[in-house]
Amino acid sequence: MEINQNIIVALAAIVGENNVFTDEATRIDYGHDETEDYNFPPHVVVKPGTTEEISEIMKLANKHKLPVVPIGGRTGLSGGALSISGGIGLSMERFAKILDIDTQNLQVTTEPGVITQVLKEAVAEHGLFYPVDPSSMGSCFIGGNIAENSGGARAVKYGVTKDYVLNLEVVLPTGEIIWTGANTLKNSTGYNLTQLMVGSEGTLGVVTKIVLKLLPQNSHNVLMLVPFYKAEQACEAVSAVFRAGIVPSALEFMERDALEWTMRFVEGVSVPLKDNIQAHLLIEVDGNYPDVLFQEAEKIMSVVEAFEIDEVLFADTDDQKNALWKMRRAVGEAVKSNSIYKEEDTVVPRYELPTLLKGVKDIGNKYGFQSVCYGHAGDGNLHINIVKGEMSDENWETEVPKGIVEIFELTVRLKGTLSGEHGIGYVQKNFMPLAFDVTQLNLMKGIKQLFDPNNILNPGKILPDNL
Amino acid sequence: MEINQNIIVALAAIVGENNVFTDEATRIDYGHDETEDYNFPPHVVVKPGTTEEISEIMKLANKHKLPVVPIGGRTGLSGGALSISGGIGLSMERFAKILDIDTQNLQVTTEPGVITQVLKEAVAEHGLFYPVDPSSMGSCFIGGNIAENSGGARAVKYGVTKDYVLNLEVVLPTGEIIWTGANTLKNSTGYNLTQLMVGSEGTLGVVTKIVLKLLPQNSHNVLMLVPFYKAEQACEAVSAVFRAGIVPSALEFMERDALEWTMRFVEGVSVPLKDNIQAHLLIEVDGNYPDVLFQEAEKIMSVVEAFEIDEVLFADTDDQKNALWKMRRAVGEAVKSNSIYKEEDTVVPRYELPTLLKGVKDIGNKYGFQSVCYGHAGDGNLHINIVKGEMSDENWETEVPKGIVEIFELTVRLKGTLSGEHGIGYVQKNFMPLAFDVTQLNLMKGIKQLFDPNNILNPGKILPDNL
Repeated sequence: MEINQNIIVALAAIVGENNVFTDEATRIDYGHDETEDYNFPPHVVVKPGTTEEISEIMKLANKHKLPVVPIGGRTGLSGGALSISGGIGLSMERFAKILDIDTQNLQVTTEPGVITQVLKEAVAEHGLFYPVDPSSMGSCFIGGNIAENSGGARAVKYGVTKDYVLNLEVVLPTGEIIWTGANTLKNSTGYNLTQLMVGSEGTLGVVTKIVLKLLPQNSHNVLMLVPFYKAEQACEAVSAVFRAGIVPSALEFMERDALEWTMRFVEGVSVPLKDNIQAHLLIEVDGNYPDVLFQEAEKIMSVVEAFEIDEVLFADTDDQKNALWKMRRAVGEAVKSNSIYKEEDTVVPRYELPTLLKGVKDIGNKYGFQSVCYGHAGDGNLHINIVKGEMSDENWETEVPKGIVEIFELTVRLKGTLSGEHGIGYVQKNFMPLAFDVTQLNLMKGIKQLFDPNNILNPGKILPDNL
Repeated sequence: MEINQNIIVALAAIVGENNVFTDEATRIDYGHDETEDYNFPPHVVVKPGTTEEISEIMKLANKHKLPVVPIGGRTGLSGGALSISGGIGLSMERFAKILDIDTQNLQVTTEPGVITQVLKEAVAEHGLFYPVDPSSMGSCFIGGNIAENSGGARAVKYGVTKDYVLNLEVVLPTGEIIWTGANTLKNSTGYNLTQLMVGSEGTLGVVTKIVLKLLPQNSHNVLMLVPFYKAEQACEAVSAVFRAGIVPSALEFMERDALEWTMRFVEGVSVPLKDNIQAHLLIEVDGNYPDVLFQEAEKIMSVVEAFEIDEVLFADTDDQKNALWKMRRAVGEAVKSNSIYKEEDTVVPRYELPTLLKGVKDIGNKYGFQSVCYGHAGDGNLHINIVKGEMSDENWETEVPKGIVEIFELTVRLKGTLSGEHGIGYVQKNFMPLAFDVTQLNLMKGIKQLFDPNNILNPGKILPDNL
């Protein structure tokens, strides 16, 4: 059914007239996230303020079979927040309150529209640490992190979003309000609805409250940038660090191109970059005891020195550290600002990284595309940016998709999978049969039908079209 | 349908005659786990050797609507492995091979019938660490740990089973064989079937291969036993340790009775126990740097000294450490060997422990039962053993269940839940409505129906009878 004036009036009765938007500018504004250059505007943008309002919206949408798409910070990279069937765009921006920083239990209860970095800083003021730090943390919502099971640089030591979610308040697609679990560190009480919700990309329910586990904050860290003459050796060094018994708090890989583009397109970031350097590893260790960190840094040095490396840069001051991290976090934006692109979020067991990297370059040569690779190497998570550059539109449309299929086939052959932290959303859904056969996909489809019998909540995401 | 001779013949054709048992002794032997004094023998015990055989068994069972109950090490405490409807008891004991210790990726691929301690020791020989250590680790199967999402003493720092499971090979109740995910540390590729399987207590599928994440092994630890004059203060000290910025690798609580019973019923364990001591905390920190561990132990001392404590015992040698751990691990067995009992596996946010402990004692006074409490206090996970002792059979049958309801109501009121690590299984299923309302329970029921349309795999577990 179309969104007609009666629906608009009904929505306004739920959330108030001021929170319903049908003008084109607003609809277009809420029609995109950071996925390529897509824009799918919803027919109407609604900004609810309470869980109960969302429940009423879902009941209305079920009655009239209207699509509802939850929208967070619009930083997603798989099109999870795109209103591909129009309908109601459900912006969560008014759910912006941190409800309780519980210093006794090391937990925080928050609404989903809080920006991740705001949440991190708020708990840090109490000496507490929420480790998950996607590169977009300055603008993404914590609710979007739940939806995509976001990672980031510190996942290698501290885990991803799913490892911190204890309990969720959720409005089901049918309008009921539930809590998925309990506010406890351990839970063996029925099927794990919490973990089913995390990473479900806004297709199984609308998260309205989030209880997260926190850690005591570490006081110190050591950050080093290691230049490698050969990119594959940089990848090899990654698993060597772990095999030496060290668990770094970050272990990031950047191809030469990634750094060059970043220095060209982002102001105020710069590192020495000799001609014959192919890649860098950015390695951090953290803890409370500086002496220990220096010992660990030395151990890491002895590991990386077994490869062909240039002079290692140690960040001596907070300013230097911030500059290196600013650079690392800007890579994605820089690569994307320069060309039409497609980004793949491949992940493999970390020892397979060199094979993956080499394979990606070979596939690029075969199909005539350039790729810029970087990512969370400690997790085996390689972001592959395929850039259009001078490529013809025709080749971009025909050859690149073949190459992407081969990249994913390689990933799966290496016991990896399609997405490490960005989700499947809209742009990767038709690649799902490369990772799963029809049995698993039908289980997922059955789960979707169980939660959302009318297929109104974020329809057309995750599962392939022809399932 | 009954198990008749045709079924026996068909089963023998699948697994071989030598692996089918219908004699009473075997059936009774496989009719129990460690849950109270229950025995529900299966009609036939089958010991398959391959995934394909289990697939065939499931197809046969579907055709004839026969219950199938996966059976592991039979150490469960919630009756998950009890054949309450008879049928086929599917012993996983022949799946006893560790398939691949992957030192490059810090992963292990194992069959589910491997004893947890055997797995831990095998990876330790390669300098690798699988941290999950349920007290039953000397006899439980790793597959059973997956089923119950087992924890143990080290969960407080290292997490529970779910935090280490990367990928599972599973035979679905309908006979299809799937992998649930990928062998990667991060994964945002579709609904999380892996985490749905972990903790599902053998009701959604039979796990046949398991890929676990491993950590580099730590070289050192410090273990201390702290006697408290007041049990509630011991509980208070638990959250104080974390608030001081320390994450111990174990933080265990034992009531005086727990220790007394253990010393009485288990040979060769003994600690000093002055008359006026009500409880102990067993606290461990681990890492690679002894100096750091001593500093952390000092910090812990300064935290616990703010409470009314007696002299702290530091375990100086490996023998002393082993003796203390042997004692702690024997508590459950000791308490249970002395009386008919019921064990509750309550879990709350850790700061609520003193309130929970006091509440349990008050409820015991109200209904006239004695309880012995101990457990993984750092996780807020308190094992409450209600012992029958001199109580009349009538009161045991009528009063105790009322008290258990009140204990669970208190737990849920404190934002906790019914089970932290033992699962719901058979004995707790009818308490589930205390933790969940009908909406969540119906979602769980829907998941069960999706995976197991004929309700043949471990039927009558987790979900309440009247749902």
